[in-house]
Amino acid sequence: MQKIEHIGIAVASLEQSIHKYELLLGVSCYKVEEVASEAVKTAFFMVGDTKIELLEGTIPESVISKYVSSKGEGIHHIAYGVTDIKAEMIRLKNEGFRVLNEEPKAGADNKWVCFVHPKDANGVLTELCQERN
Amino acid sequence: MQKIEHIGIAVASLEQSIHKYELLLGVSCYKVEEVASEAVKTAFFMVGDTKIELLEGTIPESVISKYVSSKGEGIHHIAYGVTDIKAEMIRLKNEGFRVLNEEPKAGADNKWVCFVHPKDANGVLTELCQERN
Repeated sequence: MQKIEHIGIAVASLEQSIHKYELLLGVSCYKVEEVASEAVKTAFFMVGDTKIELLEGTIPESVISKYVSSKGEGIHHIAYGVTDIKAEMIRLKNEGFRVLNEEPKAGADNKWVCFVHPKDANGVLTELCQERN
Repeated sequence: MQKIEHIGIAVASLEQSIHKYELLLGVSCYKVEEVASEAVKTAFFMVGDTKIELLEGTIPESVISKYVSSKGEGIHHIAYGVTDIKAEMIRLKNEGFRVLNEEPKAGADNKWVCFVHPKDANGVLTELCQERN
């Protein structure tokens, strides 16, 4: 893994959270983006070399809405930046990690993404992401 | 906040987790350290400019042991690096954030640390940390 690309935080309402995180982090939100395929709206903040991504589900069936309903708001995943996501997926599978999608899929912020099963990473939903060109 | 200094992950056993995280991250653990005052053992990994910190409670009464017992293993906190922790604590208090310790306390990895109440940060236990000189 090259770096921690972002940390995803599940929230009930972006509208009520963006200003709070601007105050907490001391930086402005630089982008709000909806990812229709995942039924989420996202808001990004840059802190050093890493992003904080707030996520709100747009429908009750969204993974994020269900997470907030069952566990409450909180840290949802850690995303690691990689330069060759397919090679990294093969490397991890060979090491015994289960990936949740067999092919990289399009994520927010112009990325190809893949998730690793949280049970293989001490309860941490782990994302790989690579810039889409 | 200057950067994301580390992400803390609560685990049941460092011994069983360090090698797994070495495989996951593709880097070696560079330090194992016990913080007796917090009743935790910690293991650090460098990923880009940010650290992953695995935490294991050393006694059942440890905050980390209780966290793992009640919620399971998983992401425990996000720590932001700051250059003047006391000034940052004052700034956050003035913005309405509650801090969990009124004075910076000694944390792992040669840091002064302070925690912000998770209820003020969308369920995220938020740490400020500054290098101890």
